[in-house]
Amino acid sequence: MAIDLRLDINEVALLSDLYELTVSSALFARDMNEPAAFELALRRMPPNRGFMIAAGIERVLEVLEQLRFDAAAIAYLDSLQIFKPAFLDYLAKFRFRGDVRAIAEGEVFFAGEPILEIYAPLVEAQIAETLVLNQAGFAAMVATKAARCVGAAQGRRVVDFGMRRAQGADAALIAARSSYLAGFAGTSNLLAGLRYGIPVFGTMSHSFVMAHDSELAAFEAFSSSFAAPVTILADTYDTLRGVENAAKVAARLRESGAKLGGIRLDSGNLQALSIRTRKILDQHGLGETAIFASGNLDEYRIAELLAARAPIDAFGVGTALAVSDDAPAGDFTYKLVEYKGQPRLKLSEGKASTPGRKQVFRASAAAGGYIGDLVSALDESAVTVAKVLKAPPSQIKPILEVQMERGVRRLPRPALNEIRAWAAAAVARLDPRWRMLRKPVEYPVRNSAAIHAMIISEKVRADRRQL
Amino acid sequence: MAIDLRLDINEVALLSDLYELTVSSALFARDMNEPAAFELALRRMPPNRGFMIAAGIERVLEVLEQLRFDAAAIAYLDSLQIFKPAFLDYLAKFRFRGDVRAIAEGEVFFAGEPILEIYAPLVEAQIAETLVLNQAGFAAMVATKAARCVGAAQGRRVVDFGMRRAQGADAALIAARSSYLAGFAGTSNLLAGLRYGIPVFGTMSHSFVMAHDSELAAFEAFSSSFAAPVTILADTYDTLRGVENAAKVAARLRESGAKLGGIRLDSGNLQALSIRTRKILDQHGLGETAIFASGNLDEYRIAELLAARAPIDAFGVGTALAVSDDAPAGDFTYKLVEYKGQPRLKLSEGKASTPGRKQVFRASAAAGGYIGDLVSALDESAVTVAKVLKAPPSQIKPILEVQMERGVRRLPRPALNEIRAWAAAAVARLDPRWRMLRKPVEYPVRNSAAIHAMIISEKVRADRRQL
Repeated sequence: MAIDLRLDINEVALLSDLYELTVSSALFARDMNEPAAFELALRRMPPNRGFMIAAGIERVLEVLEQLRFDAAAIAYLDSLQIFKPAFLDYLAKFRFRGDVRAIAEGEVFFAGEPILEIYAPLVEAQIAETLVLNQAGFAAMVATKAARCVGAAQGRRVVDFGMRRAQGADAALIAARSSYLAGFAGTSNLLAGLRYGIPVFGTMSHSFVMAHDSELAAFEAFSSSFAAPVTILADTYDTLRGVENAAKVAARLRESGAKLGGIRLDSGNLQALSIRTRKILDQHGLGETAIFASGNLDEYRIAELLAARAPIDAFGVGTALAVSDDAPAGDFTYKLVEYKGQPRLKLSEGKASTPGRKQVFRASAAAGGYIGDLVSALDESAVTVAKVLKAPPSQIKPILEVQMERGVRRLPRPALNEIRAWAAAAVARLDPRWRMLRKPVEYPVRNSAAIHAMIISEKVRADRRQL
Repeated sequence: MAIDLRLDINEVALLSDLYELTVSSALFARDMNEPAAFELALRRMPPNRGFMIAAGIERVLEVLEQLRFDAAAIAYLDSLQIFKPAFLDYLAKFRFRGDVRAIAEGEVFFAGEPILEIYAPLVEAQIAETLVLNQAGFAAMVATKAARCVGAAQGRRVVDFGMRRAQGADAALIAARSSYLAGFAGTSNLLAGLRYGIPVFGTMSHSFVMAHDSELAAFEAFSSSFAAPVTILADTYDTLRGVENAAKVAARLRESGAKLGGIRLDSGNLQALSIRTRKILDQHGLGETAIFASGNLDEYRIAELLAARAPIDAFGVGTALAVSDDAPAGDFTYKLVEYKGQPRLKLSEGKASTPGRKQVFRASAAAGGYIGDLVSALDESAVTVAKVLKAPPSQIKPILEVQMERGVRRLPRPALNEIRAWAAAAVARLDPRWRMLRKPVEYPVRNSAAIHAMIISEKVRADRRQL
């Protein structure tokens, strides 16, 4: 018996808004299927974000390679009595055969620049829209949130504890993978551990303590159950008395040559409690026992705790990470920029798009730090770009790479740990002003003169399109 | 080849935090597997919420019936070198054989009362934790958000357009189903349409207009492509000129005996634009052509638009719904309340739990409106309850129903449309003060005297547990 909490490969093509297919069927019926370019971009930076981390790109590429409308999908679409048989036949044979240029997963990006371009027959590029937005958008939001937490933690370990509050099963998997990619030490999510090879972490539940008649007995039972050092949860009742009980257990463990890994504080004033906990542990000679904090943490709270010198060695971040709570959705768009070799734009109020196929060039200083990005037309010369970016060509790189040609991936699939290393290196190249947790300075992203000229000429042309 | 964007039935058991299994293995090794009761409850109401709608319960029940650790899961857990063979053998044979009492999906609920109780051997109830929270939490948040939008729309149709900004694939499915359950007319999500039989809606994309050399030609092409009346998207360039073009198409359609279904406004000042659009349509004698609005809408904006008499006939709500943007996660907890027949509680600062197994009684006025809830001990008499709630027993109902006994569902599985009807009836029973979009009055939820007494005695007992 199938359960609802599942997603089969053959269903993925229907993870689509109806209009993608109605529009496609109208285009198909008119043979309007010339090459088109659509761009994924972030319209504006989310609140307090000075940089974004790309994620979800690998999944998008994987799905595009596998996209199929199976018999059940076709039968369902037929039942809607919207689509003509010729279009349903086309869908039944549908394969994505387009080209994809995209930023590398783990790279930093900013609002106002394309991070993924699909260049394909119009209908193929249209059909990909909902999937691209759904998958690459949230993954980037949570990778970015995670990178901010890692930055705030100043080298201390941060672990994803968010699955229970994540928006469904897929979100929990995306959050675990994206946060690891962005520098988290691991996750509590076992399925993410299995799928992605991410280290899994866990401490102890309140229920375990509550089920025992004595807290001390619970701590002893737990710590003697495992060969490796465990982390004990101290706040089920009175936290500091819990810490005293944990210290007793640690002292006994030491006598037998074992040790306590850490103490977890999950509620109350973590700053005051961590200081008192550290004192108690040190009084018992337990300098090596770590303090692990959790409970409504996010990058802001972590920064506050460390600014107040809270002696916390590691952080568990749950809800705030898993739903990217101060920015649960990014303003990502997927817009047609060229059709039949001609630039296209929309002028909708507050939602205008930038026409034409593009490349984004990123300049670095000699020491490696990023300086700024230039959004250019596809055919602009390296000399022009170097002049505008005021950097030698050797310090300028195009960030959109050919990832897929005619539906086949061209670049080797990077391992998650490589992506993680790349993300760490990319964030390190950002000036601290762009990494500030609140009101960061805006990273310079400019349009080239050619792009500006195209915007002006396309506005005129768009005007004529309404006559 | 398997893709990452999928979820197989046999993976669902690993949608679990590591600590559920470490704790369970320590309990298992000590034969601490007596009956335990865990409760799912909302700790506090999310901002501006005066009521919540239960959702996700059906999925939880379905998953509990099917929960299995397959060979791959066992092999993975074994690879972690944490678990002893006897526990892995236990997991390999694991079946959920517990009892579940829960609120009906679609019913309203409030903070401070249990909405689902699992009563099972301690380890079984522990293992269910992450899944229960992940699935029932978000589903309720989005059902609640949707009910608020429906209330704000005052009888006008509201449609889910949120998939592209949802937090992954599962979130999009949950959002589509939960919003329909809470009164939305349908969704743009095709897979939700197929799975749940929800009506699917769609209009037209900006790209369709942009791909044509003339807006008028695009509108004509689109409207002539389908037998049923279509909705035209007017804001790709200048909105009011777009409306004029749409009106021309509508006039021509009328000549041939067809008609235009509606015009969609997706940007700009929707209040001003809808008034001017209505005027243009009426001037062309197109009184039957509806105005469909979308673009950064939520319950607050819908209410403002209607308060300003914007002549909008239907609303598309996307991002704000799909991520429940002003409250992306609810403060749901799953707490041990009884073990071996003894009440249990935790006292963690700001996170204390209420001990003991419970029933929630809801009183109604003679006319049907809900009056208030009483959280009582499981064995309290109907007479006591009626006295406290000041309502005759015939107007009091227990809201936790036995849904599952020894792992088998006991109540017939309701159809989605029945749940939807139930939700509409439940919301209608709420006083408008509790339904206010901002700063609603708090619905009365009280603990019975027996619960109060239990809290006091358990605090004393918990104190002793630390000695």
